[in-house]
Amino acid sequence: MDHNKTPSIKIFEVGLRDGLQNEPQILKTSNKLGLIDRLSETGIKDIELTAFANPDLIPTLYDHKDILALYKKKYGTNYSALIFNYEGYINLRKYEFDQFSVVVSASNTHNIRNINKTINKTLEDFSIIAKHAKRDNRPFRAYLSCVFGCPYEGYIDTDSVVNISKKLVSLGACEISISDTIGAGTHQEVSSLFKKLLKFIPARKLAFHAHGTRGMAMANICIALKLGIRTFDSAFGGLGGCPYAYGASGNISTEDLVSMLYNLGYTTNINLDKLCQVSLYSKRILNRHIQSKIFSMYNK
Amino acid sequence: MDHNKTPSIKIFEVGLRDGLQNEPQILKTSNKLGLIDRLSETGIKDIELTAFANPDLIPTLYDHKDILALYKKKYGTNYSALIFNYEGYINLRKYEFDQFSVVVSASNTHNIRNINKTINKTLEDFSIIAKHAKRDNRPFRAYLSCVFGCPYEGYIDTDSVVNISKKLVSLGACEISISDTIGAGTHQEVSSLFKKLLKFIPARKLAFHAHGTRGMAMANICIALKLGIRTFDSAFGGLGGCPYAYGASGNISTEDLVSMLYNLGYTTNINLDKLCQVSLYSKRILNRHIQSKIFSMYNK
Repeated sequence: MDHNKTPSIKIFEVGLRDGLQNEPQILKTSNKLGLIDRLSETGIKDIELTAFANPDLIPTLYDHKDILALYKKKYGTNYSALIFNYEGYINLRKYEFDQFSVVVSASNTHNIRNINKTINKTLEDFSIIAKHAKRDNRPFRAYLSCVFGCPYEGYIDTDSVVNISKKLVSLGACEISISDTIGAGTHQEVSSLFKKLLKFIPARKLAFHAHGTRGMAMANICIALKLGIRTFDSAFGGLGGCPYAYGASGNISTEDLVSMLYNLGYTTNINLDKLCQVSLYSKRILNRHIQSKIFSMYNK
Repeated sequence: MDHNKTPSIKIFEVGLRDGLQNEPQILKTSNKLGLIDRLSETGIKDIELTAFANPDLIPTLYDHKDILALYKKKYGTNYSALIFNYEGYINLRKYEFDQFSVVVSASNTHNIRNINKTINKTLEDFSIIAKHAKRDNRPFRAYLSCVFGCPYEGYIDTDSVVNISKKLVSLGACEISISDTIGAGTHQEVSSLFKKLLKFIPARKLAFHAHGTRGMAMANICIALKLGIRTFDSAFGGLGGCPYAYGASGNISTEDLVSMLYNLGYTTNINLDKLCQVSLYSKRILNRHIQSKIFSMYNK
């Protein structure tokens, strides 16, 4: 890398959604709003606020409507929410937001278990949502999950990942978040998949969503960086996997990622100290150990 | 990498020394012997048992003589101990061992604080120890610490690291363990240093000793692997950094490393299940949370 150029990296903060979604504790809306305020002050420009999910299925995100109604916008920051279907989009549209996300799995079984329909049906539904979004001038990102393995199907075919990604781009997705949901991707697999994707999709439309399940997330992010990927999903405090529970499959922590990027000579314009303050706040309201490396140095 | 070849990786297990050295708790000798027995059964072929250290300085390794007197050797496994000076070597020689280790820092200040002498004086002392070791037919490895930064001096000059490494090889060290004591090395720094070292020293004489302080250990190990390094230091359970204390600067966990190597197509001949049993035992006797990713999946 040419250090004189210091490429800029976009961090897509998923802690409030993918993080809290997997936490055992249910936070008060006021605490979540406190997290949003603090995150907005760190310099992060892309914050996913919540998901329009059925509270019976994801109890921790019970208050998605209140979050959208009450969060404080910071000028220049891109606030988004995840929706699962057209009804979710219609509900989201009642509130102020900059962007929204949709999700489809590279594994048909996982997709059926997760959102109760096949991959093909999901993509058909996206095309309807995409048309409305285009008319409303709302960009959307698409998570493509389980790209390096599925808890049900195991091996996932790379060609199928590439084909779904191409389809998502053709539907108008501004960004495809290539998601290693179970943290199973190896150095070679990450390298091989992104090389294939980059033949069809420009790097600016690709994001990498790594999970720390097997400790390979940072190594894999380095590979994606080398191939030109410039957008990475992460969660403050590495939220999303309880340190004492099965898998510890949290998202990669935003503070560890920002610190590594800084050390590698990339810029993020994110204030690491303020980021650690977010994790400190989350430690207090969740009353649990935060497993991020940088936070544990900060919180000595 | 050519998967048909599946290169074999040597794991140098440092949990009993570098791990326990930094743990706040003092274990009973019987528990340490229990750890050694279990580690020997995992398939790990290189186990550092302890250090001949002053118990006032490293209280947790108070029983190094008892450990050397009482440990059960498994045929084919290489047992070693760290010594700090000639006196240590003379003491160690009273016991049964296969190899020993010495340590010098790439930072003069760190070396003086750590072992109370300059780098030059340390290397002079090594030359005396090395002569005796050669006569006794005992191979020794040398840890070169703080190669990517020092808590006192900060930046460390790469040329100086290369020169000390060359000197250590010329003194007869069978292996130089390039040690990122504070876990500060970046992808580029690791790549650049090993490339320089490999101009003078064959890969089989180089090991990489990574710490997880900033979450970059696995990424850095992947870089070293690509450059042909085939020996890595690690500690069962990622011991050596308390998860609740400053820095969380533990060694990289042996189980996470073995799992990643397996996923990358390398062989270690180490049984991951038995390795997790070692961490489970250590969890019980240390009565603390084990932060290894693979162990937390195993210990669900």
